[in-house]
Amino acid sequence: MSNDSSSRIVADLRDWIAAAPPGARLPSTRALVERYSAGPVTVQKALRTLTAQGLIESRPGVGTFVRTVPTARSADYGWQTAALGSPRGHGSRLFSALRTIPNDRIALHSGYPDRELLPERLVRAAFTRAGRGDAAVNRPPSAGQPDLQAWFAAELAAVAPAAVLPPAPSDVVVFPGSQSGLNSTFQSLVGPGRPLLVESPTYWGAILAAARAGVRVVPVPGDSRGPRIEDLIRAFRQTGARAFYAQPHFANPTGVQWAPERAAEVLEVVRDNGAFLVEDDWAHDFGIDSVPIPLAARDDAGHVVYLRSLTKSVSPAVRIAAVVARGPARERIVADAQAESMYVSGLLQTVALDIVTHPGWRTHLRSLAQRLATRRDLLVGALREHVPDARLEVVPRGGLHLWVRLPDRTDLARLVRDCEDEGVFVAPGDEWFPAEPTGEYLRINFSGPNPGAFPEGARIIGAALARQLHG
Amino acid sequence: MSNDSSSRIVADLRDWIAAAPPGARLPSTRALVERYSAGPVTVQKALRTLTAQGLIESRPGVGTFVRTVPTARSADYGWQTAALGSPRGHGSRLFSALRTIPNDRIALHSGYPDRELLPERLVRAAFTRAGRGDAAVNRPPSAGQPDLQAWFAAELAAVAPAAVLPPAPSDVVVFPGSQSGLNSTFQSLVGPGRPLLVESPTYWGAILAAARAGVRVVPVPGDSRGPRIEDLIRAFRQTGARAFYAQPHFANPTGVQWAPERAAEVLEVVRDNGAFLVEDDWAHDFGIDSVPIPLAARDDAGHVVYLRSLTKSVSPAVRIAAVVARGPARERIVADAQAESMYVSGLLQTVALDIVTHPGWRTHLRSLAQRLATRRDLLVGALREHVPDARLEVVPRGGLHLWVRLPDRTDLARLVRDCEDEGVFVAPGDEWFPAEPTGEYLRINFSGPNPGAFPEGARIIGAALARQLHG
Repeated sequence: MSNDSSSRIVADLRDWIAAAPPGARLPSTRALVERYSAGPVTVQKALRTLTAQGLIESRPGVGTFVRTVPTARSADYGWQTAALGSPRGHGSRLFSALRTIPNDRIALHSGYPDRELLPERLVRAAFTRAGRGDAAVNRPPSAGQPDLQAWFAAELAAVAPAAVLPPAPSDVVVFPGSQSGLNSTFQSLVGPGRPLLVESPTYWGAILAAARAGVRVVPVPGDSRGPRIEDLIRAFRQTGARAFYAQPHFANPTGVQWAPERAAEVLEVVRDNGAFLVEDDWAHDFGIDSVPIPLAARDDAGHVVYLRSLTKSVSPAVRIAAVVARGPARERIVADAQAESMYVSGLLQTVALDIVTHPGWRTHLRSLAQRLATRRDLLVGALREHVPDARLEVVPRGGLHLWVRLPDRTDLARLVRDCEDEGVFVAPGDEWFPAEPTGEYLRINFSGPNPGAFPEGARIIGAALARQLHG
Repeated sequence: MSNDSSSRIVADLRDWIAAAPPGARLPSTRALVERYSAGPVTVQKALRTLTAQGLIESRPGVGTFVRTVPTARSADYGWQTAALGSPRGHGSRLFSALRTIPNDRIALHSGYPDRELLPERLVRAAFTRAGRGDAAVNRPPSAGQPDLQAWFAAELAAVAPAAVLPPAPSDVVVFPGSQSGLNSTFQSLVGPGRPLLVESPTYWGAILAAARAGVRVVPVPGDSRGPRIEDLIRAFRQTGARAFYAQPHFANPTGVQWAPERAAEVLEVVRDNGAFLVEDDWAHDFGIDSVPIPLAARDDAGHVVYLRSLTKSVSPAVRIAAVVARGPARERIVADAQAESMYVSGLLQTVALDIVTHPGWRTHLRSLAQRLATRRDLLVGALREHVPDARLEVVPRGGLHLWVRLPDRTDLARLVRDCEDEGVFVAPGDEWFPAEPTGEYLRINFSGPNPGAFPEGARIIGAALARQLHG
C-alpha cells in the first residue's frame, strides 16, 4: 500500500482520537481494515505512527486505547518575561505571503507558484535517484558540494562578457534557502547597527533578515526603470552605507526590471562608494518576455554579491540557494554560513543539481514562461475590467506578481478583510515597505492555484473597493 | 545505468580537462563508451553534466571541446577591507571535527559516526517513499510539519513523570539542523552583549553559535558528575545571566553524564535564578550503557529549552533538529526561526518521521548501542595499552568520543601534527574550551571508519607522545 493511504488513515483517526475521551478503545485492526478499505499492513503502519506520536497505546492481548495524559492546566510562564527582556525588532508575525488557506478559496496572496507550475516529474525522479546514491549518507563541505558550486558559477560565466573574469566554483556558498543566504550576507557585509540601503518597497523577507541581523535599513525610492540615482548617491553620502540590497529583475513586489543604462549607473555609484550591491535574483527562472542577465556577470571586482535561489522554481522541498561572492567578502560569508548551519544536506544539493542539469529542465522553463504569460495577461485583463479604480504602474516582464496601486483614500486593512470574507485572499502592500508606505497597494499573485478564478477574484476585489470609494 | 557510474566518468573527465589546454577536443562518445565500459546514455549524461558545469562545450557536427575561459588574473579586492571593517569574533576556521580526510588514513578526529553506523537501508527507503508523496512539492508551516512536531513532543511525553504536563506538539520548532537551533535559541533567549553560562569545556559549535549571536559566554567548570554547583551559583550571581547551555548526557567532549542528584540541583539553581537551561541532548540516540532521560521531561514551567537532533543518528543528509520550548520563549524562537530560514524542507521532515517511526529504527538503535560499546571498549583498551602517559577521566556511558588528558608539558599542536604525518587524525582539545584550556587534551572518536585500526592508531599516538616526553 502507498504511504499516502496510511497518512489518510492517520489523519482520520487523529480526528477521532481528538473527540474521544482518554482511555477510549480504538476499533480492532480488522474493523479498521474494513472501514478504510485498506490492507492490514497499512492499518498497522497508521497505528504505529499514532503510537509514536503518543496519541494511542496498545496493551498486547487487550486492545489499543487513546492515551491518558495529565489534564491540561494553565501554566505560568510569567517569570520568562523578566528573563527575556523586551524583543529586539522583529516580532512573531505571520506574513501574508506565507499563509496557507483552504482549497476552495481564491488565493492571490501567496509568494509561491502553484504546484502545477513546478517540474514535479523531475523532482520526484531526482529524489528517487538521490536516495540510491552516496548523497543519502554523506556529509558535504560547509561551503557546498563542489559540483553544485560549479553549476552556479557556470551559470554566471555563461553570460559574462569576454573581458570579465567569471566567478570560480569556490566563490559559491550553498545555503538551505535564500532566507539563510540573506541573513549571512547581511550579518557578514553589514553587521549590527550599521546601515544597509534597500529599494523601497522591497521584499519583506529581506526587511526581516535585516532586522534579525540588527542592521539599520535605509530606503531608497525608485521608478519604473530602477532606483533613482540622485537618491541613491545621497543615501550613500548621508549614511556612509557600504551595501545596497536590490532585486534588479522583476522586483518583488513592484515587478520593475532595471533599464540597462540605470543598472550601469547603479553599478558605478556602488563602485564609487567602495560598496557592495547585494543582487537578489529571486526570479531568475521566472522570466516571461525577458531573460534576466545578472549584474553579477558584469562585475569581477567583488562589488556584486549575487543571491540565487532554486526553491521557488524547483520545489519548496528543495531548499537550496547560493550566494556568489569574491575576496574577503566570500570568506566572511562562508564563516557565517558555517556558524549558522554547519553544512547543507548533500542529498538536497544532489537533487537540485540533478534537476537543473536534466534536459527536461530547459523544456520546463520554456513552458513555464508561456504559462506565466497567459496567467499574467489573464489577471491584468481581469483587473482592468473589474477594478477600474486600481492602477498598474508596471506590467512585469517576469516574476509571479502584480503590484496594484489603489486610490489614496482606500482603507487597505478593511479591503483585505472584506475580500477575505468573500473568499479572495490578497496581500496588503504595506508588508513590503521598510518604513511608512508611500501609498495603498495590493500585491496580487498570478502564479497561484486555479487561474480560471482570476476574473471572479478581480470582480470581488473591484466590488469591495467600489463599496468603499463610491459608497 | 546507475547515477554513480556517470558520476565516476564526470570525476575522471574533470581530471582530464584540468590537465588539457583550453580548446582541446574530447574523445568521441564512442571512444568514451569503450574506455569506461559504460552505455552511451551514461556517457551522454556525464557530458551534459560537464557542459552544465561550464567545463566543456559541444559544437554540433564538430565535437566536444574544453571550454575557453578568460585567463585568470589576480583580482584586487583591497577596497573590501574598508567596506567590511574588522571581523566580529568568529573567523573562518576549519574545525577538526569537520575535516574530511583520505580513506587510507586512520580517522579519530571526526564529530560524526561512520556510514556503517547509520540506518542506511531505512534512509534510502524513506527518501524513495517521500519522493512519491506530497512532501516533494508542498511547503510546510514555519514551525514545522505537525506530525513531526507531534513525534518530538511525544518522545518527551513518553518519559515525563505523571505529575508533569508534557509539551504539546505546538511547543516544538523544527530546524534545518541543530546548529541553526542553537543560533535561534541563543539569539532569542540571550541576545547580543548579554551573558550565557556554558560548561567548560563544551561543544565548539555552541561556542561558535554564541559568538555569531554576539552573546558573551561565561565558562562554568564541572567534574565527572556534572557542573560544580557552587561555581554555577556564583556565575549566575556575578553575571546576572538568565541562561545556561549544557549537555547533561554524554557531553561533547568530556563524555560526562550528570548524576541524577546533580541534575536536580542544577534545575533548582536555574529555577531560583529565573533562568533557562538550554539542554542540548545531542547524543540521545547514542546511549551505550545508559538511556538518557532528558531533564526537559521533568520541567513544565518553561525553564528547560530542549534541543534534539536527528542528523547524526539518522544521516547527515537528513538535516533535521527540534527545539522544544514553552511560553513566550517559544514565540521568540519561532519568530527567529522564520526570520532565519522561513521553513524547513517538508521532504526532509517527512523522511525523518518515516525513519524514526519505522519498526526498524528501534532495532537499529539496539544494534548501534552494541556496536558503539565494542568500539569504545576496543579504543579504551588500545589507549591504555599504547598510550600509558594519557589519562581517561571518564569512560563515557554513551556518545561517540573519548576525552583524553595528556601530561601538562605536552606540546599539543606538535603532537597532532606528528600523528597526522603518520596518518592518524585526532582533534586537539583546545577547540572545546570557551576560554583558555585548563589542560592538554585530545578528543578521540570511536565511531569513525575502520575500528580494526584503533590499536595501530593508539600505537602511533603513544609513540609520538613518548618521543616528546621521554626524548
